Amino acid sequence: MSQFWNPLVHKLKPYVPGEQPKVSNLIKLNTNENPYQPSPKAVKAIKTVADSGLQLYPDPESSALKNALADYYGVQSKQVFVGNGSDEVLAHIFKALFNNSAPILFPDISYSFYPVYSGLFELDYTMVPLTEQFTIDVNDYNQTNGGIIFPNPNAPSGILMPLSNIELMAKNNPDSVLVIDEAYIDFGGETAINLVDQYPNLLVTQTFSKSRALAGIRVGFAIGHCELIEGLERVKNSFNSYPMDKMATEGAIAALHDKDYFAQTRQNIITSREKLTADLQHLDFQVLPSSANFVFARHKQRDAAELAQALREKAIIVRHFKQERIDQFLRITIGTDQQCQALVDALREILR
Amino acid sequence: MSQFWNPLVHKLKPYVPGEQPKVSNLIKLNTNENPYQPSPKAVKAIKTVADSGLQLYPDPESSALKNALADYYGVQSKQVFVGNGSDEVLAHIFKALFNNSAPILFPDISYSFYPVYSGLFELDYTMVPLTEQFTIDVNDYNQTNGGIIFPNPNAPSGILMPLSNIELMAKNNPDSVLVIDEAYIDFGGETAINLVDQYPNLLVTQTFSKSRALAGIRVGFAIGHCELIEGLERVKNSFNSYPMDKMATEGAIAALHDKDYFAQTRQNIITSREKLTADLQHLDFQVLPSSANFVFARHKQRDAAELAQALREKAIIVRHFKQERIDQFLRITIGTDQQCQALVDALREILR
Repeated sequence: MSQFWNPLVHKLKPYVPGEQPKVSNLIKLNTNENPYQPSPKAVKAIKTVADSGLQLYPDPESSALKNALADYYGVQSKQVFVGNGSDEVLAHIFKALFNNSAPILFPDISYSFYPVYSGLFELDYTMVPLTEQFTIDVNDYNQTNGGIIFPNPNAPSGILMPLSNIELMAKNNPDSVLVIDEAYIDFGGETAINLVDQYPNLLVTQTFSKSRALAGIRVGFAIGHCELIEGLERVKNSFNSYPMDKMATEGAIAALHDKDYFAQTRQNIITSREKLTADLQHLDFQVLPSSANFVFARHKQRDAAELAQALREKAIIVRHFKQERIDQFLRITIGTDQQCQALVDALREILR
Repeated sequence: MSQFWNPLVHKLKPYVPGEQPKVSNLIKLNTNENPYQPSPKAVKAIKTVADSGLQLYPDPESSALKNALADYYGVQSKQVFVGNGSDEVLAHIFKALFNNSAPILFPDISYSFYPVYSGLFELDYTMVPLTEQFTIDVNDYNQTNGGIIFPNPNAPSGILMPLSNIELMAKNNPDSVLVIDEAYIDFGGETAINLVDQYPNLLVTQTFSKSRALAGIRVGFAIGHCELIEGLERVKNSFNSYPMDKMATEGAIAALHDKDYFAQTRQNIITSREKLTADLQHLDFQVLPSSANFVFARHKQRDAAELAQALREKAIIVRHFKQERIDQFLRITIGTDQQCQALVDALREILR
């Protein structure tokens, strides 16, 4: 508390990210990072840029990255917005494209940054309960709103909504912006980007932090109708002209172009996920059907917080949310097969 | 214009940064970049980090960089805030520490992002005219306000305010936050950081983009009382958990530690500035006394916009502001001696 804070600051409840421990030798399955290194071509591009004259500002428009994404997804460059991680992209979306004509809608169990952005930009919101099966019911969103957002697949559930339902939701809400936060889409879903030309109210966000294994460089993007993008650009250019550094944009472009590496690491993770799911089920866990690079699992007898603590004592960290409805679940990032096996072995010992 | 924009977006007048031309072979003296490469140690640190596992998120607190800055400036780590370029730091300051109890005050001739931030965060402001000599009169700021900000040295004038006047201003305005934007301080001024322990309302910002020659990596910081910093952290953590990528923080730390390189390149620029000032005066320019890495100069006979255009035709770009009171000035970044000589030669031809 300080007399010098804007009154709003006293009311903020900042987001708490998953722990980034400063010790090594941990098996880190708590923040949904990719267990594989990024494409060697991305690393090479970053190192090349580092030698190319960092005393100069980057391109404030990040045109090269926008063009690369436009090519990749078959849209126009002016339909692409880029930001300093998809968290920054989401922040600008809340500021630019949501409004207080009615509450913003998002699921009660979802990315916990959404209520934080709403607080920062003083937007009312309603958290719409997931069904008993932790799925999103499209009909629950047929109410007046100032914007709708949810991750697909949802987090931390991992459950995918079919594209037909997204299309239905876009149709049902023609007067407000529908944002699909596809941080995890590459691990088992089909992107809604192909729908944006039909629905001017539909905006899709993605990140390089998960399937592209580049959480360390902070790149996210949004694709939608050029008018939505223009609104985002206006806010971005009123906030920070140069949010994207040169290494980030060049690394992202190189990663996007390395399709073989992407396909291979993605498939590895999907295969590991299916194996881990079966192993957890054998250990008496209920595992929600995941299309992401994590699983959300509840042991049928044992308390989740206790399990998380017991794993930590064995140098394995997973994420536990002290939140109603899901406080008996653990969110476990898919590691390498070796890391998954270590987790299963540790759980087997703990549950013995 | 779009029905999907938040109503505020229609009113925004985004900042327009200096041109970042996509062609090479230009002498670029328009955005106050450093003409020298960054410290080779910074480049090496960046390349080392690129190999170290970019699939993991960076430290959300950027503790290593805060500690390095705290050591360097003799303050505590909790007195240091870091951001994605000082533009992001400034944006968070406007949101967290300025308020609408009364207008924000800044000079009429100053960094043109200040009114843009005010628009984004819906803060009233008053532009206080500089004196006839383009200096800031401390007494003009003895009025009720919701915050005060100006660059020192001021931009685009380059004129330094003595530290005693900053202290006086902090004393005169004990109930609002006084922000000194020291983007250019290393080129001839004394930082106000040494005053922050005495004045809990004083906050100082700096950047790695100018004297550290790292505009390409986007790192800025603020130093002040820990309560001011906590307010900034609350906003930052409600906006983006991980604004600083690993290469940026490690590059900045290495640059900070390379004191010899810093001292040498800074001295080169100061020496070049003094020579360029004399050369411009010989060509019949009035040159304001600069403590920055640029000069602000007006030719006694020739129109500034025409001169800027004539220089551009000779592949030299400088900055011209179409703004009352200063539309006959050119802002010229200090280049290498060779670049400065090319500018002087070009001007001599144009003025012939």
